[in-house]
Formats: sequence, C-alpha cells, structure tokens
Amino acid sequence: MARKSRKKKIGVSPGSLIYVGDKTDEPVKISVITYNEHQASDAAEVSVDELLHDKNGESVTWINVSGIHKMEVIEKIGKRFHLHPLLLEDIVNTQHRAKIDDYEDYLFAVLKMIFWEPDSGQLQFEHVCIILGSGFLISFQEREGDVFESVRERIQKGKGRIRKSGAGYLAYTLVDTIVDHYFLVLEQLGDEIEGLQQEALERPTQKTLAAIHAARHQVVYLRKSIWPMREMINSLLRGESGLIEGYVLIYLQDVYDHVIQVIDTIETYRDLLAGILECYMSTVSLKMNETMKVLTVMATLFIPLTFFAGVYGMNFRFMPELEWQYGYPVFWAVAAAVFVSMVIWFKTRKWL
Amino acid sequence: MARKSRKKKIGVSPGSLIYVGDKTDEPVKISVITYNEHQASDAAEVSVDELLHDKNGESVTWINVSGIHKMEVIEKIGKRFHLHPLLLEDIVNTQHRAKIDDYEDYLFAVLKMIFWEPDSGQLQFEHVCIILGSGFLISFQEREGDVFESVRERIQKGKGRIRKSGAGYLAYTLVDTIVDHYFLVLEQLGDEIEGLQQEALERPTQKTLAAIHAARHQVVYLRKSIWPMREMINSLLRGESGLIEGYVLIYLQDVYDHVIQVIDTIETYRDLLAGILECYMSTVSLKMNETMKVLTVMATLFIPLTFFAGVYGMNFRFMPELEWQYGYPVFWAVAAAVFVSMVIWFKTRKWL
Amino acid sequence: MARKSRKKKIGVSPGSLIYVGDKTDEPVKISVITYNEHQASDAAEVSVDELLHDKNGESVTWINVSGIHKMEVIEKIGKRFHLHPLLLEDIVNTQHRAKIDDYEDYLFAVLKMIFWEPDSGQLQFEHVCIILGSGFLISFQEREGDVFESVRERIQKGKGRIRKSGAGYLAYTLVDTIVDHYFLVLEQLGDEIEGLQQEALERPTQKTLAAIHAARHQVVYLRKSIWPMREMINSLLRGESGLIEGYVLIYLQDVYDHVIQVIDTIETYRDLLAGILECYMSTVSLKMNETMKVLTVMATLFIPLTFFAGVYGMNFRFMPELEWQYGYPVFWAVAAAVFVSMVIWFKTRKWL
Amino acid sequence: MARKSRKKKIGVSPGSLIYVGDKTDEPVKISVITYNEHQASDAAEVSVDELLHDKNGESVTWINVSGIHKMEVIEKIGKRFHLHPLLLEDIVNTQHRAKIDDYEDYLFAVLKMIFWEPDSGQLQFEHVCIILGSGFLISFQEREGDVFESVRERIQKGKGRIRKSGAGYLAYTLVDTIVDHYFLVLEQLGDEIEGLQQEALERPTQKTLAAIHAARHQVVYLRKSIWPMREMINSLLRGESGLIEGYVLIYLQDVYDHVIQVIDTIETYRDLLAGILECYMSTVSLKMNETMKVLTVMATLFIPLTFFAGVYGMNFRFMPELEWQYGYPVFWAVAAAVFVSMVIWFKTRKWL
Amino acid sequence: MARKSRKKKIGVSPGSLIYVGDKTDEPVKISVITYNEHQASDAAEVSVDELLHDKNGESVTWINVSGIHKMEVIEKIGKRFHLHPLLLEDIVNTQHRAKIDDYEDYLFAVLKMIFWEPDSGQLQFEHVCIILGSGFLISFQEREGDVFESVRERIQKGKGRIRKSGAGYLAYTLVDTIVDHYFLVLEQLGDEIEGLQQEALERPTQKTLAAIHAARHQVVYLRKSIWPMREMINSLLRGESGLIEGYVLIYLQDVYDHVIQVIDTIETYRDLLAGILECYMSTVSLKMNETMKVLTVMATLFIPLTFFAGVYGMNFRFMPELEWQYGYPVFWAVAAAVFVSMVIWFKTRKWL
Repeated sequence: MARKSRKKKIGVSPGSLIYVGDKTDEPVKISVITYNEHQASDAAEVSVDELLHDKNGESVTWINVSGIHKMEVIEKIGKRFHLHPLLLEDIVNTQHRAKIDDYEDYLFAVLKMIFWEPDSGQLQFEHVCIILGSGFLISFQEREGDVFESVRERIQKGKGRIRKSGAGYLAYTLVDTIVDHYFLVLEQLGDEIEGLQQEALERPTQKTLAAIHAARHQVVYLRKSIWPMREMINSLLRGESGLIEGYVLIYLQDVYDHVIQVIDTIETYRDLLAGILECYMSTVSLKMNETMKVLTVMATLFIPLTFFAGVYGMNFRFMPELEWQYGYPVFWAVAAAVFVSMVIWFKTRKWL
Repeated sequence: MARKSRKKKIGVSPGSLIYVGDKTDEPVKISVITYNEHQASDAAEVSVDELLHDKNGESVTWINVSGIHKMEVIEKIGKRFHLHPLLLEDIVNTQHRAKIDDYEDYLFAVLKMIFWEPDSGQLQFEHVCIILGSGFLISFQEREGDVFESVRERIQKGKGRIRKSGAGYLAYTLVDTIVDHYFLVLEQLGDEIEGLQQEALERPTQKTLAAIHAARHQVVYLRKSIWPMREMINSLLRGESGLIEGYVLIYLQDVYDHVIQVIDTIETYRDLLAGILECYMSTVSLKMNETMKVLTVMATLFIPLTFFAGVYGMNFRFMPELEWQYGYPVFWAVAAAVFVSMVIWFKTRKWL
Repeated sequence: MARKSRKKKIGVSPGSLIYVGDKTDEPVKISVITYNEHQASDAAEVSVDELLHDKNGESVTWINVSGIHKMEVIEKIGKRFHLHPLLLEDIVNTQHRAKIDDYEDYLFAVLKMIFWEPDSGQLQFEHVCIILGSGFLISFQEREGDVFESVRERIQKGKGRIRKSGAGYLAYTLVDTIVDHYFLVLEQLGDEIEGLQQEALERPTQKTLAAIHAARHQVVYLRKSIWPMREMINSLLRGESGLIEGYVLIYLQDVYDHVIQVIDTIETYRDLLAGILECYMSTVSLKMNETMKVLTVMATLFIPLTFFAGVYGMNFRFMPELEWQYGYPVFWAVAAAVFVSMVIWFKTRKWL
Repeated sequence: MARKSRKKKIGVSPGSLIYVGDKTDEPVKISVITYNEHQASDAAEVSVDELLHDKNGESVTWINVSGIHKMEVIEKIGKRFHLHPLLLEDIVNTQHRAKIDDYEDYLFAVLKMIFWEPDSGQLQFEHVCIILGSGFLISFQEREGDVFESVRERIQKGKGRIRKSGAGYLAYTLVDTIVDHYFLVLEQLGDEIEGLQQEALERPTQKTLAAIHAARHQVVYLRKSIWPMREMINSLLRGESGLIEGYVLIYLQDVYDHVIQVIDTIETYRDLLAGILECYMSTVSLKMNETMKVLTVMATLFIPLTFFAGVYGMNFRFMPELEWQYGYPVFWAVAAAVFVSMVIWFKTRKWL
Repeated sequence: MARKSRKKKIGVSPGSLIYVGDKTDEPVKISVITYNEHQASDAAEVSVDELLHDKNGESVTWINVSGIHKMEVIEKIGKRFHLHPLLLEDIVNTQHRAKIDDYEDYLFAVLKMIFWEPDSGQLQFEHVCIILGSGFLISFQEREGDVFESVRERIQKGKGRIRKSGAGYLAYTLVDTIVDHYFLVLEQLGDEIEGLQQEALERPTQKTLAAIHAARHQVVYLRKSIWPMREMINSLLRGESGLIEGYVLIYLQDVYDHVIQVIDTIETYRDLLAGILECYMSTVSLKMNETMKVLTVMATLFIPLTFFAGVYGMNFRFMPELEWQYGYPVFWAVAAAVFVSMVIWFKTRKWL
C-alpha cells in the first residue's frame, strides 16, 4: 500500500531532492489565494516565478501546489521562500510520516490524507505538506484534488470566521479538513466490519477470510498514519510558536479531540477484527465438527450392517442360518435393532 | 452500536451545528429547578426565552434539556449563556467521547450514559453534556428519561446535603448517577459471562459463539466509553477551576474510585471472555477428537472383517476353505478374535 | 466470584450506608485490645457504646470489628470516632478495591484478604478495612476469623517489638499478615498449575480444560485484588502522614517487596497458564492427528482390497478369472502385495 | 522450579529467621580473603567467632559464606556486623527477588545466579546476597560452588586492577561474574531453540511440544529473575551511596549494558518460542490436512466402485447385465473410467 | 543469526579484549582520509604506527579500520588514542547492542549495520563502532565492505557540505548511511511479505509456513537491532557533547525521523506477519473442512447403497425380493431415490 522504493536514495547527500512516489507526467499546478477581511483574490495555474508573497500583515496568501514530482519546481519554491534543504527533501519523500518541525521563521508540517479511491475502492494515502509562515501558507499535495475545495469556497464566500483570521487559522482549517476525511474512511470501514461479523458467524468462506485480512491490513496502515498526526497536533498545542495565534489553540484542541476519536475508533476496529477472526476460526472448527459428526453417524450406522450383509453373502458350503426359513426376516430385524439402538445412542450424545 | 454518520460534516466551518444522532420528532423539553438551602422550585416545559438565570449566589439553577436534535433551541441557549460555538458543536455531536473543557466562566463536560434498552435488551449509549457555571448548571440529554429523576427527588425532598451545597455538588451528583449506571450494566453482563463460561465448557454451539462474540463486542464499546470518563474526572480532580468547591473534591475522588472499579471490572471481563473463547475452541477441538475416535474405532473394527466377509463371498471355482465343514464357524472365531484384540488395543490407547 | 449486586445503590445520596455483601444473621463482634510496652488487656464482645478510646499517647488501642452487615453498628462507630460518611460507605461496600485515603486525623485503608475456603476449596476474597488514628486502630472484617489471631497472640505474649511500638507498627503487622496469606494461596495454586502442566501434555481431557480455565479465572481475580494493594502500600511509603512512624517505613518497604513478589508470581502463573492452554490445544491437535492416521491407515489398507473381493463376488456369467485353477491363490498373492506395499509407503511417511 | 514453601512463615514476627530453601546437612563454610595492593591472604573454613574485620582503610576484607541453612550462623554474623533483622530475613529467604537496600552503613544486594545443573541438565537458580560495607564485603551463597573461584584467583594473582581497587570494585566483580553466567545459560538455551525450530517445522511430535513448553517455562523464570537485577543495578547507578567509588560507576554501567543485553535476548527468545509454538500447531494442522487428503482420496476412489461391485454381486433372478457376454469387461472399463476421472479431478484440486 | 559464543569471556578481568565474532584470517586494513574545505588526502592500508592524527583544528581525519579480529591492532589503536579499556572491549564484542557512551574527550557509538548477504540471501548484521573526537573520527567495521564508499566519494569530490563541515557532520553521515541500509532491507522484506500474504490465502504449503516463520524471525532480530539505535540517536539529540556541532543536530533529527520510520515499518510488518500466520491457519482449517466435506459427501452417498447391495448379495434361501421379476429395477430406483434425496439434503446444507 504505502510502500514505495527508497533504493535510489542511499549514498546521497542529505538535502538532495529525490521523489519516491509514483511516476506521473501531469503538470504541477500552483494556485494562489490572497484574502483579508474585506476581499479575496484567486489565481489558478500561477508559475513559480510569479509567486510574490505580499509581506504586509494585512492579508493572508495561500499558495497551493498540486504535484510534487517535479524537483525543479520544488527547488525554485525552496529558494524563493528560503526553505531548509531537509524540509524540501521531506516534501518530496511521500513515505514520510506525519510530523511538525519548527524552523523559527516558519512551521513545517507533514500530514497524511486518506480516501477511498473511487475506481478500485482501495484505501489511498496522500502525502500533504504545509508550510506556515507569517502571513502566508504553502500547501503541497501529491496530485490535484478537491479536498481543499470547501476551504477555498469558504474563503471566497467569506463564510465563517476564516476571512477575519490569520494564516494560523487557515492552517487549522486545512488540518481539520484532512482529519475529517478519516471519519469518512472509518465509516465505510465500519460498515464493512459489521458485514464481516455477520458473515464470519454464519457462512465463513475463503472470501470472508480474505476480506477480514484486507480490513486488518487497512487498520494497520490507518494506525500507522494517524498516530504521528496525534503527536504532531499535540506538539502544536504545546508549542510556543508565535505563528499560531492564541485563539486558534482552542480550535486545534478540537482537532486534537477528533484525532483522538479517530484513534479510539481504529483501536476499536482492531479489537473487533481480532474478535471476528477468532469467530471465523471457531465457526470453521464448529462446522468441521458438524461435518465429522455426519460422517461418523453415517459410517457408524452402516458399517456394522454392511459387515453382516457381507457375512451372509459368503459362499461357505455349511452356513446353517442361510437354510433357516426365517433367516432373512431375522437379519432385517437384527439390522433394524442395531440401527435403532445406534440412533438412540447418538441421541443421548446429542449428535442427532 | 455507537457508530453514526458524520458524512454531512466534512467541509463545513467549525462551530456549525450539525446533529449526527438518530432522527426524531419528539419535542425538546426544558425543565428548570431552582433551589437553595431553604426552598426549591421546579418548572417543567419551560421555553428557551423564559430561561432567566438568577445571578445572585444564594440559589442554584439547574436547567435540564431533554432532546438535542433541534439546532435552533441549542443555538438560542448558546446565545443566552454566551457559550462558545465549538462547545455547542460538541453538544449535538452524539459521537463525541467524554471530555472536560475549561472555558474559564464555565466548565463543559461530555459524558456517556449506558443502559440496557428495555425492549431489545441491547446496550445503549446516550450522550449527556453538562455545563457548570457559577450558580447554574445546564444538562443536555439525547431524549427524555428518568435517569436524573432520583436527583430531582433528592432536591425536592431536601435529602442529603444537596440543598445545602452549590452547583459543583450538583454536577458531582449527576456524574455519580451516570457512573452508577455502569455498575448496573456490568452486573448484567457479568451474569451473562458466567453463563457463557459454563456453556463453553459443556455444550458449545454456534449460539454460544455468537453470544461470546456479542459480549466481547459490548466490552469493547464499554471500554471505549469509560476510559475517557476516567481522564475527565482525573482532570477535574487536578483542576483548579474555582467552579468546583473544595469539599466536593473528596466526593469526586469517590466517583473516580468508582470509575477505576468499573475499568477494573471491564478489564477483568475482557480477560474472562478471552479465556472463555479459548475454552470454547478447546472444547470444540476436544469434541471433534471424540467424534473422530468413535469413527476410527467403528471403522477400524469392521473394515478388516468386512474384507474377510467379502473374500468368502467371492465366486472362484476353487476356494478350498468354502468346502470345509467348519469353514463358517472358523470364520466367526477368527472375526471374533480380531474384534476382541482390536478392542483391547483401543483400551490400551484409552480410546474406549 | 467477587461480583455482588450493587443494584440497590443507584440514585441514593452519597454516604448512605448500603451493605452489598452476602446476607448473614451472625452477630457483629467487637473486641478491644489495649497495650503498651508493659501490659496488654483484651476484651471480647464489647458493645459499641463501651468503646472509649483512651487518648493518652502511652498505650495503643486496637478495636477489631467482625461483621459489617449491620449498618447501625457501623454508623454508631462512625459517630463515635467522627469518621467521614464516604469512609463508612466504603467499609460496607465489600466490592471496593484496595486503596488508602488520608483524612488528616486518620488514615483509611481498604484491603483484600484471600484464602481457600476450607470446605469447597474455592478461592475466597474478604474485604478488610483499617482505620489508623493517633494511638488507635480500628479494623473491620466481613466475618469472624482467625486471620489476626497470630497478631493478637504476639501482643499478648509481648513477642517481637510489637508491644514497644505504636499503632503504625500494628497497622503494618496487619497488612503484613494479609499479604502473607497471598503466598499461601499462590503456593497451592502453584502446585495445581504444575499438575495441570503434566496433564495437558500427557492426557488432556475435558476436566483438564475446566481446571485450566478455573485456574486462569483465579489468577485474573488475584491480579485484580493485588495490584491496588501495590499502589496502596506505595502511596503509604511516599506518604508524609505523621501517623506512620519513620522506623515503620523500612518494614512497610519489606511488605512492599512481598507484594511485588506476589505480583511477579501471579504474572508468572499467568504466563504459565497461557502456555499450558496452548500445550493443551496442541496436544489435542496432535492426538487428533494420531487418531486420523490410524483411521487413514486402516481404511487405506482395506478399502482397495475390499473392492477387489467385491469384484470377484460378482455374478457375471462370463468372468474368466473365476474359472482359473489358481485364481484364488493369485487373489491372495495380489492382496498381500498391495497390503505390503501400502505398509511400506506408510513407513516412509512415518505413519507407522 | 523456584517455588518453595513459605507456609511456615505466616504469623511470625518480622525479622524472624526462617530458611525456606532445600533442606541440607552440609556444613556452612566461611572463607575470608584480605587484600590490598601489595598482598593478599586467604583463609578457608573460618569460624564466625574468628571473623574480625580489619577496620583500617588500607585493605579489603571479603568474607564468603557458603550455606545459609543454619540460622545460628546467620544470626551470629548479623550480630557481629550489626545487620538489620529484615536484612537477615532476606538472606535466608531464598525466594526473594533481586533488590538493593541502602542501610547507610552498608549496601545490601540480593542477586539470582543461574546455571545448568550438570547432572540433570535442569536450570537452577541460586540465591546470592552481598553486603558491601566500608572496606569489607560479605557474600552469601546457598551452597559451596566455584562461581567466585575466578575472582579469588584474580585477587591471589593480582591480575587486572582488582587488588588496586576497593570493596566497591570487588562488589562489581561479583555482580559481573553472576551476570556473565546468564550468557552461558542463554547460549545453551539458544542452541536448543534453534533445534526446536527445525523440529517444529519438519517433524513435530509430542516430545517437541514438551520441549517447547519446557523452554518457554525456562524463559518465564529467567525473565522473572533478570528484570529485578536490571532495576537493582540501575538504582546502584543512580545511587549516591559513598560505598561505591566514582570510577566503579563506569564498570557498573558496563554490567548494566550486559543485563540489558540479557533481557533483550530473553525477550527475543520469548518471541521466537511463541513463533515456534505457532509453527508447531500450523505444521500439525497441515499434516492432519495431508492425512485427511489421503483418506479422502482413497475412500472417494474406491467407495463408488465397491458399490458397483456389490450391485453385480446381488442375487436377483433377473439381472440382464449379468447375462451379457461382455458384462464383466464393461464393468472393468466403467470402473477404470470412474477411477481415472476421479484422479483427474483430484489433480485439478492439487490433492495428488 | 546474531548469536555467537561468549563462553570464553566468563571469569576474565573487565577490559580484557576477547573477540567473539566469526574467526577469520583476513588482514586488518586501515585507511585514513584527511580533509578540509580546500583539499582531501586518502591513504589506504596504513599501519597502526603511522597513525598520526593531525591535532590542528583545520582538517578532519577519518580513520577507518576494517577487521576487528586482531586484538593487538585494537590494543595499539587504544593506546595511541588513549581509549578506555571497556570501550575497546565493546569494539571487539560483536554481540553488543547499539549504544552511545560519552567519554568526555570522545564519544563512542556502537551501531548495527544490516544487509542481505548477496550469496545466501540471508539477513546479516554487522557490528560497526564509531569514535568521535575533536577533529578526528575512527570507525571500526567487522570486514572490508563498500558501505562507506559513497561517503568517501563525497569527500573526495567535495559534493554537498561534507568538506565544509567538521567531524560531527562526518559522524552523522556515517550513521545516516547505516540507517539508510535498513530501508533497503525493509523493502525486500516488504516484497516478500506481500508475496506470503497471497500465498497464505491461496495455496498454503509447508514451504509457506517456513517462509512466514523465517520472515518473523528476521523481524524479531531487526527490532532487536533498531530499538537501541533509536535510544542512541535520541541521547545524542539530547546530549550536550561539544563534539557535535549545533547545526548538525537538525540533521541528526532527520536521521532520528528515519529510525522512527524504520521502527514503524518493522512494527507494521510484525502486525502483518501475525495476521498472515492467522490467515494461513484459517486457510488450512478451511481447506481441511473442504476435504472433510468431500469425504463425508462421498461416504454418506454410497455407504447406505453399498449396504443395500450387500443385502441382496446374501445367500439366504428364502429372500422373496430376489425372485420378483422387477426386483433389480426396483433396487436401482430406490438407490437413485436415496442418492438424489441425499444430494438435495447436501445442497440445502450448502455442501455441494
């Protein structure tokens, strides 16, 4: 899932930019939104060279970069905003876990977005980076998407307090949007788990097993991606960075509560899935036992009778029973008696 | 169980009120009790506009809101008491885990009530919120219920020290009532577990397995709801909020002890259920082994004999044994000898 | 085991005394021992009204109350010694976990005694409470027993340093006695576990499984009762309560070491029992495999032969083999060859 | 293994000396070595009364007591060196876990030696106590042994820095020797585990299971004995006891590293053994599946054929097939066809 | 894997150099690189006596020792650089876990390199030690290898900032190179695990089991080697050693992030492997159930029919059915009816 090759990186100077994500030829799109309480301007497909970040404290500039596979673009942005080489390295390292680094002039956060890929229905992770400076925010996404669309709309329409607040509040809004996507994923996963539960108890098949395993797999990767987010937001809450305005902290605390709730739910799913697998195995065992009982009952009922039939099919010259007039009815009577007593014995053992 | 949809929430400004619980059309009922050491007045079905909270420190006002599905009611209350928008969001988010937030002028606590639904016998969780201000307390319940009835009665009758104490003591009383309900649930669960234990060892069926699984399920959700309550009360105990009077802390410590005991019991049930499941699987294995032994004994006893009977049922022209006068008795003698020696062999292997 | 009903408690004012233990009609017995370095007096069956605790620092008064099911007695004692209502509530709540509360004028400790019930051989938990004041100690037991007999004797005979020491040392002695009983229980449990180990490996039956399960059950409850004792003694050791004399701390450290050792042993038993259960299941699996092999060997040896015998028992008019003079001996030769080659094949698979 | 009776201890004053180890009649041997940088004297079988410890700081006196089963000897030593009664109690309590107590004038350490008993090949634990005073060290062993022989030799021959160092360095040397023995034990255990691994995967028998279980057993007891050693050395490292010279701390850190490595290895073995057991069970399951397949293939191939043979062995008067000239060859042809198609079916299911 | 004999070490003075790794006769090779911002000189196969480390602060000297099996070489180096005897002991103890020791004049770090042995494809651990002094760095490797080749090249070619930085940066570069090798190993392991997953679900064989077990084995050893590296780098980050320049800390933080990611990945693999093993066992169980069903279906279908065929093969003189003209067709009709009803019954049980 989230495993990609790092082979090319070994033996290279730190700070060298090497993209480890999926190859793609799509162009890198940069959009810039500048807003303050009174107005908001939006520019799509800006080139790096046009990026001029307005240093006066009045307005907030949000630069959104979609596509991190072109090293030269990342390097140019790095130079323009005087970003640390290691930071740039982390932007393009799509494997990097969530974290926050305080570079004094700016905060750098790595986040993990998750969503269900619409086509394959597979869980996808996306690497999102946010640089929060004084009066500006730069966000990097792996590919173009509509995840931040709602935020853009709120800025345009001036809904909520976003236009009245600074870049710190914008950063909070983006993180909040990312965390909210976890709930979407968890909800679908939860429905799936509920279904698996029923299936494991009632009609366990190889397909059920594969589905349980796939769900556990997803939970393992979800855990791996959300735990560092918790640490990250926690260190923001503790942090004394002047870039986050005081009143934003209460909102961050809210996001933190959501992350905790995501973690709680993931741990719950983990427990449930472990229980479902055990259920599955128990049900299979029980069903095997049922199968065995059927076999045993059938075999036990007929094997002795077949032997007796075989005996009277023997061709010995002197077999007195064969000559008896009532030999045959007596055989049937004995067979019935044996059969019935066996059945009774099975009944007492609760096998029938 | 406690999973409800959050889908509608994504991309919405923080502080927007969106009810995520079950849809319902029942009216929201607000009752107000005002009491001090000397008197107590009780008013049911008050409208929001009538809510006038008496600021003089002499008496305590308890406003109880049953029903949180009407956003306009919640918003009105929010405005009247100057509550933070995020707080209102948490009131209507019935999925929110237990927590305590200190908003300086008031404390805001989210709690989880549990009870067995009388009709279906299913475990139900209810979202309860408490706002504790200076001289007043507002409580929110998902639906009308009699859970706080005993508290109301104690106020009316002036039992105990409740009338002599402030709003902090009232808050303690409500939390205590909620925690006490956990014991009720645990007790019933404990009886069930004891039954399952016996069943798993003696007559494991598919139904036992489903019941074990359901009980584990409930324990998982109980854990998820009680752990945050522990953190919450702990932070109250540590807290320096002036809203909790000093002498109430010793009572809160008592509630804390109860919560710890609930947690202890839940962990114990978890261990017991894990043990019961293992027992179940071992018993099934053992029973399968028993089944196999019956089959093996029967098959092993009769399969060689049937072969011999088959041999003497063959129609070869020259089979000297068939002509012997004692062929048939000798056959029986040999068969009996084989049978007996097999039985003895099984006895030595402890299979019979 | 330790689960008793709390149902009657919900909705009741805190501090209301409600006994949740087993109903009993036995009288409550109160004995008082007063001692100092020079003398010791012992009075059995004292009434509550006679309890006059001698405030001069010279002698230590130990009041032992056997039976906590009469609320009026507990209440009277509470009044006489000015005990907090919550404390009294904890005395009669036999489910309460071990803890220590510092009420400034006195320390209140809840402890859990364990012993094997002589008749049923079942593990029993007893709720023991100790109130340590300046120059006096009150202990509460669920029923009359000889657990503190040895302490009484040491006081009477002036053995060891007990008569020369204060009430804190007496408290230590009682706690030490209670902890020592855990060793007794663990020893018997250890013997049992050793036996189960042998049984699980050699002759696993349904009974073994039930015994393993019962032992795990006991370990779960032992853990639940001893961990809070550890916390309790630890907080005593840290505590600055003036009621514990400095030189007693070194003795308490000794008790603490013992509790740690009890915990170590319980954890070890837990590990061992988990291992034994796995052993049990492995042995059952292995035995089933053995059973299956026997069945498979028998069936595989005789099923083809039986078929061949069946073939020559057919009544087709034209079956040339039947007419051959050596048909019958050839049949036997072929049967023997098949049989022997099968046996050799089984040998190579290590099934025989 | 390390479980011995404590029954006799209950109800006894603290400080009473009660030996809980194995009964033995061997005499207690006391040896005394006195050394300084220039010389070393060695005296074997010294009586307690002769023990005169040279108080001048110039030389170090090492008293080694082999045998702790004679209470009177321990008591005499206790009196001569003014040792605390609880300390003496811990010396003779061979069950006591490792610990360190600081009695200001001396440090008291309990350690656990392990070794493979040469005869039975069983893991043995020995209780070793060390008292480190100013200029002297007393060590207690359960029985005479050569474990400290190498240290004695190094003192005699003046190898390394031991003669130039004080009693603290001697204490370090003894602890180091004891910890080194863990490596010996772990090495042998490691070889065993490697063997079990192979066995579990290739030819799992009841003996393998017993061996896995025994190894896990040993790991459980090793963990139980080494963890307290870690705490002990750690508290020595933190400790400000003036009895340990500063330059010895770097050596103690080295021992601490070794203990951590022992713990690491034990945890690794634990993990490996858990894996081996799971392997064992999987292999048994797989082998059972193989057995079942053989049975199923044989039965499935021949059961229908046997039925057909039985049909043509029936004695109905009117069975037209029996009269056909080619009835018999046709029977064989059909039988062969059924057989072959079955085999092909099994091939497609990968059972053959 | 990483287990080697320590037997020879017991009873030896601390600081005695005893090599515990694999025996080898290869010569020890020492190379020296001296560089500063302007130039770099490289000398291969230097003898110990030639080692003269240039004390002027202008340039950095990196001494790389390949081969630690010659004690006399290690001792000579120890003397020349005044290294502590315990440090030398740790250099040659290839079993030592990763750690960092601060000897004031120099830092001493033990690290664990991992790589896949090219020939056998086995996971190999190599013991690497680094001594960082003021202006010099000595590295020790078990054998000659090209692991540090890329670093040497960067120095020679003056790539990146390495030539402009001090010895602390060189140390960071070496540690970074070692940590990067973990990613290589994890990547290959990840591919393997993905393959095993598929195999366990689809076609579990004995080989799959062995492979799962081997992978878990490797994960156990990887965990054992990486955790101490985390502690080590963490203590470097906290450390106030003047030997690490301030600006290097941000690079070390980056390495630390990588180590955390390695740990995350290893824990994820652990979880995945546990899941795969459970899958494996479930699949085996399910397949066994399938096998059993085939057997049961076949046996159940034909056993009663065979009995009936046997009955009419009996030779009783008076068997009226045999004489009926339609006896034989009726037999077939009954047999077909039984067969069909059985098949229908199996269909309703979902066995066919």
